Formats: sequence, C-alpha cells, structure tokens
Amino acid sequence: MQFTAQEIGFMLNGTVEGDPRVAVDKLAKIEEATAGSLSFLANPKYEQYLYTTGASIVIVNHDLVLSEPVKATLIRVENAYSSFSILLEKYNTIKLNKTGNELPNFVHPSATVGENCYIGAFAYIGPGSSIGNNCKIYPNAYIADNVTIGNNVTLFPGVVVYFDCVIGNNVIIHSGAIIGSDGFGFAPQPDGTYNKIAQIGNVVLEDDVEVGSNTTIDRATMGSTVIRKGVKLDNLIQVAHNVEIGENTVIAAQTGISGSTKIGENVILGGQVGVVGHISIAKGTQVQAQSGVSRTIAEENKKWMGSPATAYGDHMRSQIVVMRLPELEKKVTELEKIIAELRNNKH
Amino acid sequence: MQFTAQEIGFMLNGTVEGDPRVAVDKLAKIEEATAGSLSFLANPKYEQYLYTTGASIVIVNHDLVLSEPVKATLIRVENAYSSFSILLEKYNTIKLNKTGNELPNFVHPSATVGENCYIGAFAYIGPGSSIGNNCKIYPNAYIADNVTIGNNVTLFPGVVVYFDCVIGNNVIIHSGAIIGSDGFGFAPQPDGTYNKIAQIGNVVLEDDVEVGSNTTIDRATMGSTVIRKGVKLDNLIQVAHNVEIGENTVIAAQTGISGSTKIGENVILGGQVGVVGHISIAKGTQVQAQSGVSRTIAEENKKWMGSPATAYGDHMRSQIVVMRLPELEKKVTELEKIIAELRNNKH
Amino acid sequence: MQFTAQEIGFMLNGTVEGDPRVAVDKLAKIEEATAGSLSFLANPKYEQYLYTTGASIVIVNHDLVLSEPVKATLIRVENAYSSFSILLEKYNTIKLNKTGNELPNFVHPSATVGENCYIGAFAYIGPGSSIGNNCKIYPNAYIADNVTIGNNVTLFPGVVVYFDCVIGNNVIIHSGAIIGSDGFGFAPQPDGTYNKIAQIGNVVLEDDVEVGSNTTIDRATMGSTVIRKGVKLDNLIQVAHNVEIGENTVIAAQTGISGSTKIGENVILGGQVGVVGHISIAKGTQVQAQSGVSRTIAEENKKWMGSPATAYGDHMRSQIVVMRLPELEKKVTELEKIIAELRNNKH
Repeated sequence: MQFTAQEIGFMLNGTVEGDPRVAVDKLAKIEEATAGSLSFLANPKYEQYLYTTGASIVIVNHDLVLSEPVKATLIRVENAYSSFSILLEKYNTIKLNKTGNELPNFVHPSATVGENCYIGAFAYIGPGSSIGNNCKIYPNAYIADNVTIGNNVTLFPGVVVYFDCVIGNNVIIHSGAIIGSDGFGFAPQPDGTYNKIAQIGNVVLEDDVEVGSNTTIDRATMGSTVIRKGVKLDNLIQVAHNVEIGENTVIAAQTGISGSTKIGENVILGGQVGVVGHISIAKGTQVQAQSGVSRTIAEENKKWMGSPATAYGDHMRSQIVVMRLPELEKKVTELEKIIAELRNNKH
Repeated sequence: MQFTAQEIGFMLNGTVEGDPRVAVDKLAKIEEATAGSLSFLANPKYEQYLYTTGASIVIVNHDLVLSEPVKATLIRVENAYSSFSILLEKYNTIKLNKTGNELPNFVHPSATVGENCYIGAFAYIGPGSSIGNNCKIYPNAYIADNVTIGNNVTLFPGVVVYFDCVIGNNVIIHSGAIIGSDGFGFAPQPDGTYNKIAQIGNVVLEDDVEVGSNTTIDRATMGSTVIRKGVKLDNLIQVAHNVEIGENTVIAAQTGISGSTKIGENVILGGQVGVVGHISIAKGTQVQAQSGVSRTIAEENKKWMGSPATAYGDHMRSQIVVMRLPELEKKVTELEKIIAELRNNKH
Repeated sequence: MQFTAQEIGFMLNGTVEGDPRVAVDKLAKIEEATAGSLSFLANPKYEQYLYTTGASIVIVNHDLVLSEPVKATLIRVENAYSSFSILLEKYNTIKLNKTGNELPNFVHPSATVGENCYIGAFAYIGPGSSIGNNCKIYPNAYIADNVTIGNNVTLFPGVVVYFDCVIGNNVIIHSGAIIGSDGFGFAPQPDGTYNKIAQIGNVVLEDDVEVGSNTTIDRATMGSTVIRKGVKLDNLIQVAHNVEIGENTVIAAQTGISGSTKIGENVILGGQVGVVGHISIAKGTQVQAQSGVSRTIAEENKKWMGSPATAYGDHMRSQIVVMRLPELEKKVTELEKIIAELRNNKH
C-alpha cells in the first residue's frame, strides 16, 4: 500500500510542508528510515536525525522550529507521537484484516458464528459455542464446547480455550496461550499417591483483555478464574485456579500467580514475579521483577521488591549492606581483637 | 443434566432430609450457590452458610447437628467432602465424554488405535504409533512416529509427542505440553560456534502421570527422560534431557529441572524453583517456591529454601537478619567509634 | 535399520577388531547397552565397562590398549567420541527424513515452497510466504503472510511464525515456539486504562539458530527483534520486542530478556535468568542461573551472579557471610555488652 504526503496529511488533519506528491509504503524510526519510509519526530532529543534522515515523510509537532533545511516532506500535527500511533494502528488493522472461511475447518453444527468473522483453516469450534461479530479465529486455534466469545475478539494460531469459558469483547489472545486447563488440585492419599480433584469451574476474560503467547490460565475448581476488564498479560505467565485479577492490571512475562489469590486494580507486576496462593494484593501495588510475594499486601499504591518481597526502600537498603557484608564481618573480627586486648590490659 | 435429591442420595448411599424431588443442574460452593445448585458442607467453620445458602441441595456429614432450620434439602453421608469429590469427578467424566472420529484427522495406516477412543479433528497419529483403549486425542494434538500410548490417556488440544516416546495408562496431558523435544546439547567449537549433539533418546511417562499446559519435557540424549508413576507436573515446567522424576512427586508451575538430575519419590517442589543438572534430590524433600537447588540433597524428608537453597530453618534465620542489616551496620560503626575513644583515653 | 560392524567401520574409516558380521540396530551408552547395540568408549574412566558391556559393537580410540579380553566387536577410530557423534547425527537424519505433502494441508496459492520439502498435514503456509529447499514444516505448524524461510529449516509441530518474519538457513524451531507475537507495549491513559501500541516490526532469525519448545520471541514495535547467527535458545524462554542477541550466544531454559536489550556475542545465560530492558551485555559475559541483570555489563568475558547480578566472586563472598549472619549479629550484641561494661568500669 502506498500513500502520498497529501493523503496522510488529510488523514491526520495536518499541514503538509514540502512535496505533497511524495509517497511512502513503510513505517520506520527516524534514525533507521530509508527512502519510501514514513517517520515521526516527537522527542526534541532526536531533532538532529530530522536533518539527516532518509525518510521521505516525517510527522512533526506544529510548533517545531527548524534550525537547518530538511529534505523530507513534513506533516505538521498537534501531537506527532499520537498521530504516528494512529497510523501504526491503521497499518496493523489493514495487515490483519482477514475475513471469511478457510477450508478445511471444523465448526460444530450447534455452534454459532457472528458476522464478518475469519475462521482459519484447521480451526475448531466445538458444540454449543458462540462467537460474536468481527472475530478472527486463526488456523489451528481450538475452541471447546459451550464457550462464549464476544465481538471483535482475535485468537491467534494455536490458542486453546477449554469448555465453558467466557471471553468478552475486544479480547486479543496470542498464539499458544491456554485458557481453562485444569487447576493443579490433588488430594494426597495415605499411601503417598494423589487423587485428582475434578476442576469443574471455568475462566472468564472480561472486555479489552490481552493475553500473551504461551500464557496459561487455569479453570477454577468451582466458580471462575476471573481476569477483569482491561488486564494485559505478557507471555509465558501462569495464572492458577480461582485467581482474580483486577481491572487494568498489567503483568510482565514469566510471572506466576498461585491459586485463589486476588490481585487488585491497576497493579503492575514485573517479570518473573511469584505470588503465593490465597492472598490478596491491594490496588495500585507495584512489584519489581523476580520478587516473591508471600503475604497479603493490604496497603494501596506501594512498591515492593525481593523474595520474600518487602517495601522497596527497605529492600534496597538491606541489599546495599549485603554487598558490604564481607567487609562488615572483617570489622567485627577486628573489634573483637581490640576489645580482648583492652580487657587484658585492664586486668 | 438434572438430578433429584433422591437420585443423588442413592448414588452416594446417603440419607435424604427434606424434599427428595428437588432437582439440581450445577455444582457450587456453599457461599456462592444459587437455586438449582448442589453444594456441600464439610468444614464446621462454614456452618453459618448452611442456613443462608441459596443451594437447593447440600451434602453434609451424618453427625452434623443443626442449630437452625435449613431451607435446602440435605443429604447426609459418611464424609461430605469425599462424597462431593465423587460427584465432581462424575460431572467431569460426563462433560469430557467424547468418543469417535472427527474428520478430517490424520491416522497413518500403520498406526493402531484401540477401542472406544476419541480422535478429534486435525489430530495427527504418525506411522507405527499405537494408542490403547478409551483414549482421547483432542483436535490439533500431534503424535509422531513409533509412539506407544496406553489405555485411558487424554491428550488435550495442541499436545505434541515426538517420535519414540512411551506413555503409560491413565496419563493426562494438558494443552500445549511438548513431550520429547530435543535436549539442549551443543558441543562448543574452537571458533566459538556450537555443533548440535543429536538427541536420540526418548521420554517415558509412566502410569497416572499428569502434565500441565505448556510444560516441556525433553528427550534424552541417549536412553530415556523418565517421569515415574503418579507424578503430577503443573504448567510451564521445564524438564531437561535425561532427568528422572520419582513416583508421586509433585512439581508446581514454572519450575525447571536441568539435565541428568534425579529427583526422588514423594518430593514436592514449589513454583519457579530451579534445580541444576547432574545432582540428585532425596525422597520426601520439600523445596520452597523460587528456590535454587545447586547441590545434591542426600538427606530425606527435609525442607529447603533460598537460592542457593539451604535448610529451611537456617534460611529463615539468615533472612530475618538480612532485613536488620542496615541497623547492624550502624551498630558496628558506633562500636568502632566507642572503642577508638576508649583506646585514646588509655594512652 | 541394521548395520554390520564392517559397514560402520567403512562409514567411519575405522579398523574392525572382532567379528565384522555382527549387526546392530540401536545406539546406547556403554554401561546400559544390550545385545544389538552400538556403543562407544572415549573417556578412560569408563574403560571398566568395555569388559562387561552387553553392546555388540563398541567404537574406541586407535591408541586404546586392552587390559582384558573383550566380547564386543571393536571399531578403532581416530576419535571415538566424534565418530559416535557422527553416527548419532546420521541416525537422527534418517529418523527425521520426511518429504512430500501430507494432506490436508493449507498452502496459499501465492506462497512458494522449494524442492524436497515436507509439508505435514494441517500445516499452514500463508499468502506471499516463501519456503526454501529441504525444509520440514511439520503438522499443525503455522506460517503467516509474507514470511521468508531459507533452506534446511525445520519447524516442528505447532510452531507459529507471525507475518513478515524472516528465518535464515539451517534453523530448527521446536514445537510450540512462537515467533513474532506482539511486543508488550501499552500506553497508560489518564483513566487508568491502557491503549495498545501497534507492533508493526518483525523477528529475524539468522542462519543456524535453534529455538527450544514453547519459547516466545516477540516482534519489534518497529524494526526487528534480531537473533543472530548460531544462537541457541532452550525451552520456555521469553525474548521481548526489539531485543538483539549476538552470534553464538547460548541461553538456558526459562530465561527472560526484556525489551530493547542488546546481548553480545558468545554470551552464556543460565536458566531462569532475568534481564531488564534497554541495557546491553558485553560479549563473552556469563550469567549464573536465576540471576537478575539490572544494569548494562560493559566489561567483556566476566562472570555474574545474583539478583541484582554482581561480579561472581563478590556475590559468592557476600552469600557466604549471609549464611553466617545470625552468628555475626550475636557477636555484635556481645561486643556491645562488653564495651558497655568497659565504659562503666572506666567511670
């Protein structure tokens, strides 16, 4: 797809400065852009690149004052960064604009599929499931029995949704994510073996949730594992049975949440964090990467770190001393000697 | 499916107290149950809910003495919890009761499939592989060449079993788990590159093993990576080549076991634990979440914690002092001053 | 497949000692080998097994002097280990020697596939994608639109490659690995919600890269996430958007690299390591398992450990004192008492 500076200026409600007929067919960072690229300049720190860039068109802020001549055609807008973001999104929407049925796929006669959907080859939609409008079910995705899926939902290739799960609107699930596999529940027996505890609950993903690739979210033993509106989960995350994650919480890759834990709204968990089961984490909490949360966090909007996680400042202060420990130990040994000496001199 | 109190009482060999014609079609926790639900009361702590629950039927222990009138129909049994577990399991068995061939699937002419199996659409069974009776091979599951699978095995959607692997009876493998991918073996070359060492062994999963979603178990370089009878693995676990995991060992999510390590029977590893290669862990060992086991654990039935893991009590004692370190360091500095003063006064 | 000692001797350019007609059909370790097995002896430590092994043929070094009679047929070569490795590889090549089209699969009319390829059942190759020669695209693998794949590439079952990604020659990707899913980029809004930032870049895997099962590599926001020539990634690794990993770097299982970080050549990262975003790690760096790298490592060829990672020696020295902390604290308390006493005596 090719667009001219004039067309883009019109799309963004901006002012074209330079040749309006120049055309672009790709997006690039200003420092890496080559001919035919569209780029943007938002941060004044990068202004130097404006005068050397190979980009054919650059989106800039209305109030930018040039200090040198510029080869590229400029498009001046209110906010260069957000205008560029809009273009990124449009670009992606066109890229991912698939509709229709690719054969062979498997849609059970008792399943319902809304309008304007894409059902890829080898995708599977089980008995009693319903899919809303404008959904994209990519190849090799699997939707089991009695699953409910809203509108504008994208399941990338290889996503698996187990039976009875419920998915809201505008949800995006990346490849290999598993929604609704059995919770890890086993009753120990006197002879050392374990009996499986049947997991008959489900998973509910509310609207606007995004789930990263190869993340796993287990179904509840009974009731629901709930991921609230607007939650964003990165890749390779583990969410155990009966967990509840509050609205607009963001969790980075490889973090694990143990069973029945409740996480509040607008929480941020770094990568590789572990959270034990049956606790709660207050809204606005932030946990640094690789931390281990082993107790309920009741106070809101605090920062935590370490394993076990403690208040961020306390942790940092302790860690600094840990690095000075060999020195501290040496000091104590010297003090012991001096004191022994002082005592001997006394007697 | 609807069941009356009378039918359930008969199934559980229990006594019905109240209207025997009341019917239920779902299972729920006593504190969340609504009309049409079956629930249970085992823990006396929750007795209060019995008098307020919306459940239509509640399973209780024989010896429960009511302190208030109850609206729900009661079914009195020897052990309410285990009776309810039996119902959960029956419910799940009915839910997951699939048989027959969904087309298209791919079963190589040289493969054999036992009686009463479910082979889902887009499932693949390679040359020379054999599947026992009552197996469920869900859609998009892949079984390579010369794989042997016992009876009553379930492979959920997207499971991959590489060639030559052996799976026992009653094994459950959740979606996205990969059994038998190559071990991570590379021989460093003088020029800094690596040569792949072919991995020609296999993986053996014995009877009653359960593997969580997106867990990876690598094939042995030569010989077998062995997961013994009754082992339960949670989600996103890494088991490297030539590892052996003893009977009835339970491992929580995101834990990783490095190559050639041997783990004993009835071990419990918490989540996000790391175990180095070429060591062994004695039977009955328990390792806390996020620990790192860097040496052989020879003594049985002990608890370990930390990275590197040390005896649980030692670790806890050290960690408490770590939090007091800034204070300890200040104390030492003060002592130094006082001693310098004492010495000066002497001379 | 059966081979005689004579045939194998010829293949390896070795000298046969004993019955040249003895045949083998499997490979095994010398201490576990049974009749019909081919084994090798490279490390003199294991020489004892040569006299007791059940193997029918053993490959040994030219200069080995026997101290007892041997039942097996020997094949003497320059280097027993590397000769055996060659056989392992040949064995594996034969095992994995698949070609042709298994139906049904989905190859878009606008996609191109080279010569001598295997396209498994339920594999998907999207519009505009091109696959080189001698490639193996296993069942249920998914290749999106406009993907470029070189020669001799293997995608095991269930691999997903998102649109626009580029894969070099001789690349091996194990089952469940996801190449090119969206980077984790969201712009926080004043009301606490997040707006998705479109991820329009791609992933580039250069020649000779191997990717482990269920590893995830996210596409760049713009530009490319780049995995350079000869990089080996183990299972369940997370590589975030815009990361660059230098040539011949090796990363163990469950490690995570955050966005925009640059890792140098010939780096070794242990398992479960975390690396924060927007830093760089110098060539030849080695990081111990479970460490957390939180700052740029500028000095080459050093070893690091801990979370946050510090120089290996410093970390070890501190950790030793950590274990002696309760003792150290007790000492300080005693010193305080003695000093108080000394001071009192003075006055």
